[in-house]
Amino acid sequence: MTERDDLTLEEKASLTSGSGTWNTEGVRDVVRPLTLSDGPHGIRRQPKRDTDALGIHDSLPATCFPPAVGLGSSWDPELAFTIGAALAREASALGVDVVLGPGINIKRSPLCGRNFEYFSEDPHLTGVMGAAVVEGIQSRGVGACVKHFAVNNQETDRMRVSADVDERTLREIYLPAFEHIVRTARPYTVMCSYNRINGVYASQNRWLLTELLRGEWGFDGLVMSDWGAVNDRAAALEAGLDLEMPPTGTDDEIVAAVRDGRLPEEVLDTAVDRLLTLAGRVEAAERHEDWDADEHHELAREAARASAVLLKNDGVLPLDPDSPQRVAVIGELARTPRYQGNGSSHVVPTRLDDAWTALGDALASEPVFAAGYRLDGAPDDDLAAEAVRAAAGADVALVFLGLPDAAESEGFDRTTIDLPEPQVALLREVAAACPRVVVVLSNGGVVSVSEWEDAASAILEGWLLGQAGGSAIADLLLGVVSPSGRLTETIPRRLSDVPSHPHFPGSDGHVVYGEGRYVGYRHYDTFDRDVAYPFGHGLTYSRFEYSDLEARETGENEWTVEATVTNAGDRYAQEVAQLYVAFDEDRPTRPRRELRGFAKVGLEPGASSRVRFTLTARDIAYWSVSRHDWRVDPGRFAVEVGASSRDIRLRAELETPGDGHVGTLDGMSTLEEWLNHPIGAEVLGGLMTAGGRDFQQVDSVLFNLALGVPLIKFRTFGIGLTAEVVDELVETVRRRQAEASR
Amino acid sequence: MTERDDLTLEEKASLTSGSGTWNTEGVRDVVRPLTLSDGPHGIRRQPKRDTDALGIHDSLPATCFPPAVGLGSSWDPELAFTIGAALAREASALGVDVVLGPGINIKRSPLCGRNFEYFSEDPHLTGVMGAAVVEGIQSRGVGACVKHFAVNNQETDRMRVSADVDERTLREIYLPAFEHIVRTARPYTVMCSYNRINGVYASQNRWLLTELLRGEWGFDGLVMSDWGAVNDRAAALEAGLDLEMPPTGTDDEIVAAVRDGRLPEEVLDTAVDRLLTLAGRVEAAERHEDWDADEHHELAREAARASAVLLKNDGVLPLDPDSPQRVAVIGELARTPRYQGNGSSHVVPTRLDDAWTALGDALASEPVFAAGYRLDGAPDDDLAAEAVRAAAGADVALVFLGLPDAAESEGFDRTTIDLPEPQVALLREVAAACPRVVVVLSNGGVVSVSEWEDAASAILEGWLLGQAGGSAIADLLLGVVSPSGRLTETIPRRLSDVPSHPHFPGSDGHVVYGEGRYVGYRHYDTFDRDVAYPFGHGLTYSRFEYSDLEARETGENEWTVEATVTNAGDRYAQEVAQLYVAFDEDRPTRPRRELRGFAKVGLEPGASSRVRFTLTARDIAYWSVSRHDWRVDPGRFAVEVGASSRDIRLRAELETPGDGHVGTLDGMSTLEEWLNHPIGAEVLGGLMTAGGRDFQQVDSVLFNLALGVPLIKFRTFGIGLTAEVVDELVETVRRRQAEASR
Repeated sequence: MTERDDLTLEEKASLTSGSGTWNTEGVRDVVRPLTLSDGPHGIRRQPKRDTDALGIHDSLPATCFPPAVGLGSSWDPELAFTIGAALAREASALGVDVVLGPGINIKRSPLCGRNFEYFSEDPHLTGVMGAAVVEGIQSRGVGACVKHFAVNNQETDRMRVSADVDERTLREIYLPAFEHIVRTARPYTVMCSYNRINGVYASQNRWLLTELLRGEWGFDGLVMSDWGAVNDRAAALEAGLDLEMPPTGTDDEIVAAVRDGRLPEEVLDTAVDRLLTLAGRVEAAERHEDWDADEHHELAREAARASAVLLKNDGVLPLDPDSPQRVAVIGELARTPRYQGNGSSHVVPTRLDDAWTALGDALASEPVFAAGYRLDGAPDDDLAAEAVRAAAGADVALVFLGLPDAAESEGFDRTTIDLPEPQVALLREVAAACPRVVVVLSNGGVVSVSEWEDAASAILEGWLLGQAGGSAIADLLLGVVSPSGRLTETIPRRLSDVPSHPHFPGSDGHVVYGEGRYVGYRHYDTFDRDVAYPFGHGLTYSRFEYSDLEARETGENEWTVEATVTNAGDRYAQEVAQLYVAFDEDRPTRPRRELRGFAKVGLEPGASSRVRFTLTARDIAYWSVSRHDWRVDPGRFAVEVGASSRDIRLRAELETPGDGHVGTLDGMSTLEEWLNHPIGAEVLGGLMTAGGRDFQQVDSVLFNLALGVPLIKFRTFGIGLTAEVVDELVETVRRRQAEASR
Repeated sequence: MTERDDLTLEEKASLTSGSGTWNTEGVRDVVRPLTLSDGPHGIRRQPKRDTDALGIHDSLPATCFPPAVGLGSSWDPELAFTIGAALAREASALGVDVVLGPGINIKRSPLCGRNFEYFSEDPHLTGVMGAAVVEGIQSRGVGACVKHFAVNNQETDRMRVSADVDERTLREIYLPAFEHIVRTARPYTVMCSYNRINGVYASQNRWLLTELLRGEWGFDGLVMSDWGAVNDRAAALEAGLDLEMPPTGTDDEIVAAVRDGRLPEEVLDTAVDRLLTLAGRVEAAERHEDWDADEHHELAREAARASAVLLKNDGVLPLDPDSPQRVAVIGELARTPRYQGNGSSHVVPTRLDDAWTALGDALASEPVFAAGYRLDGAPDDDLAAEAVRAAAGADVALVFLGLPDAAESEGFDRTTIDLPEPQVALLREVAAACPRVVVVLSNGGVVSVSEWEDAASAILEGWLLGQAGGSAIADLLLGVVSPSGRLTETIPRRLSDVPSHPHFPGSDGHVVYGEGRYVGYRHYDTFDRDVAYPFGHGLTYSRFEYSDLEARETGENEWTVEATVTNAGDRYAQEVAQLYVAFDEDRPTRPRRELRGFAKVGLEPGASSRVRFTLTARDIAYWSVSRHDWRVDPGRFAVEVGASSRDIRLRAELETPGDGHVGTLDGMSTLEEWLNHPIGAEVLGGLMTAGGRDFQQVDSVLFNLALGVPLIKFRTFGIGLTAEVVDELVETVRRRQAEASR
């Protein structure tokens, strides 16, 4: 006897869709309505029940932490956990049971309008950061919702487009972060995406929502739809989609389908059970009436400090706040910060810092301000001229540039990665007027720097940093703390260098993931393409040395890798040591290197720390399409430890015996496969030199040609390899293999 | 009553496989055995019947014309026709009914071991040249065999690999050349390829062999298998594969399948009819006992002259044969020419010219020779030193470099595009010793030139030029004729720049065509990547000017483009004027430019010629996956006329009204599609400003977000767009559209 048994068919059907935009249905005293709220980086709790989804700017105040583009750049899972816990505290105070985040799609293209909500171009980093956020949220008993499952890497036509991706790319790039989070952080809920995957809507994709998510990965929570992602209620339910959000008033379709026998009632029951389980889980959540807004603001500031990435610095930074130097602060974005993106993740902040005020407060000698440009992108010569005058009178110009609010949003993609033209023109003029120029960027998606970076002595990539971003930027510029963020996505030289560019965002209802596994640095590093700044890059105000790499086998296909990181500079700073596994191949069959671990360590000058990573078979495996499983071939690989994907400091070679899988041979196995097979080679050996002929010696070109020919195909060559002989060879190999495995 | 009615079931089955490696089966007096023979650039007639397929070097002598890599570079369909006719003459004399060629696969990667048998990276050029060869062969009544159908663009694992290609790429890149040849040249036979296409073997691919080839394109000939490509006799027959070559002794399977009712007898009858039709067609062939070997050798020489491509020339070429200058001929390849590739296309030539002899005969002052390197690639310091001494004593060094015989072949792919290291080292030393260095290349697949081309004053890309290549090269170097070949494939700066490189040749049984439509110049030009030498490039000893572009509409979606080409130099030469259609787009949805016409014109100094091209809807169409048809959107496009894809001389803009297709709208059509639809916009118009609200004015970012949302999805937004309202809107549009089309 379960709670579900108390429910009528109609009541059960009603539980599989919401009761409004932000609530699940309640039924009598069996289950109360649960409240869901957007919130990857802050709670967007709309004030009244049943409000529409479009009231994006009217939510109750909540702390706006750095969006994922910032938080991801911290490479700090502990920080991510702390923020998750803070989100849960606010959720609790705002009556929210499930926080709709984190967003963990992969940054396939810098053009994706929603990239600011995602962590990285790398699945490992995404998985680790995402798991930390989930664990943080759920540490207080509030539910997290991992979204958007899956392959939702663009906004263009997102509600219909089919992401056409080959199986290996799915497994190696677009699914591992979800897999890691589900397996390790056990989120209460997952949100399916709008798009189709190889032709099938995620919301109706049984393979995705049931076989993979629950069957393979062991997910035991509830799957809800993205808002409006359901196209066929019954098909979705059958596929494993438990909850339609928001409701479309179609519960009667479910009732009818069950009555008609088109939908087994057990399918409905399973979905209902999952909702009841969720309701039971969130009952255990901590209950809070409020939170300490100052404390959370400070946390947002700490996170923002950890998130900005110092791309370049010729020594101009940090500025000495007590110096009598004249500072010009240029750019409207210093006064009117851009600190979050548009769309469902938009938060009404509890307060808002701006860099201009924070710099003014901190600098001993009063800075001057000039707006320099209009936020709407329209040219304004007067503003520019004023800014150049300000720069001419200054020792150093802090130039705040970035993307206008309207340039990036959920719902559409960008078509360029360039800064607005007037801003670049302004920078050139300022640089001509002032010898020392520091550029501070505000942008959710990557912007190109190659055309103008020569004009800057330093560049601080400030992303979107949440409500305390302004003061955090001042802290970083003035050296209160050292920058410690690292790039989670490559900054390309130009848009046309991006591997997905030829295929993004597709057309005609399809987007072909033609670049395959070669996303981000996996492309640039494998094919040796120039980039502006590589994945993992980021400067500090100190410098770090790497030494004493030790890589040792600790079990079957298990290794420990250790290295010493030393702060060789003269101030405290944090280094992000990165571990890559690397494969060198004549013909690329896999990315040259892939991130498999990282460790952020803070060190006083002269201090050292030993970083330690563990590698398992999965870390060096690739997805075998023919086996439908992960596979490790015997052979050598390298472990690389460094400060970015292009700043490898230490390298060691290791060897794996492979996963022990010995393939079977048949007539369609090639001559080469026979000769490489331990038993096949032996069985075939006699034949290869039969009648005194050594085929290989006869003609090496012909022999090379023959290596690729399946054995059975030789039957027409008149060399005695009839179908019967081949059958006998195959049988002999099978028999000996069976004997050997006994 | 047909001939077929005389045949028993067993006899019919026997006709659907060969009677030996090179013959079809004969049945009494109903049908005689037909003889098939390799022969894309020369007849490989093996001396005895029923010899094995491996006796590649033992065929009867025949003229070895330039392989397709050479002939294609001539950009001269008339020449291709003439060679086709010569092939048929030799076929006839050698008792061959069907010549197994031309090979018209696309050069997707320079690594493909069989690229020397294919024409180009471009489908238009491939189709035109291939059609000319077919027409030439069949002009004498001998059958041609277009191969390898389809998507057979690599040798690695060719007998099993699945070429995984999206539909649009298939239609726009890999099928059009076959389509053009089938529609215009009506080949008697087509040969299916070994590989799978999206998982299905070509030999068992009903869509490919029946629906597309016969249904859509109207092919009325016979489909045979590549040698050994059949894996399942009955399945192949059902798919439309009429003839298995060579036989595998499995005719009884067909008999049994028909008897069991597993295979309809009509399927067998259809295949038999096609064989009988083929037999009837080749009965009408011209009968010859022999051919004029001198004449054909001269034709081979003419073709070779037309095929070499002058990549670079600082003025050193042509050499004056009567000058007293001292010439050093360096490189074993000058004496031991590489003039064809390995594998089934290998011909035993009737004679063989070499450049060293030809140069010695032609030069007034005796040249010196030094081998310089070993053909097997092993370093040899003595040979190199001798060559450098020869160069030091010369005014000009002609350095013959190229790929060794074993480097490229049917049956395996290359792993590098570099010349052998000892050759490059030799070139550097020779260039240091002699001020004027001319490099002559011999290679079937593209080789990189970027690392060494600075050492050469001129580079003549001699490909593989057939048996008269040696004398033709002498003719070109000495200015007997001006070079007139043009690149049919881009020479990349390095292998890693090649768009297919990340995906080539695949692994684990699959090769993903991830680069999609962006093959060759379609990639480099669209994404603005540096190349060594662009598609269409080739110098002459004269220079040409382009003028007076005229592009005019001559019908609905039909245009004529004309331009004047003038020889502005001081000697006779040939220019290849190239017509591209071009699309400029913010986000690439199609290649920036695509070849749609070319004209080779020979002009005396000062002379002009008007070249004329016709464009139709198909030339500007793209393949619509959603419509499963070609589609032309209304809008602007450009026509470009030039001397290479990167040397556009003239450009005009044209406009198309589109193909008149007006899509239907439904609830899943986005707001943007509704607003762009002539009737939809009107129907929706009232709603957009309902209640005094103009949605677009309220919030432009939100409006942009909403544009991508399907109309039906607004039903949860609380703005009155219920499912019923949407249904009504859809119905209204349908009604008005129906009214409008009456």
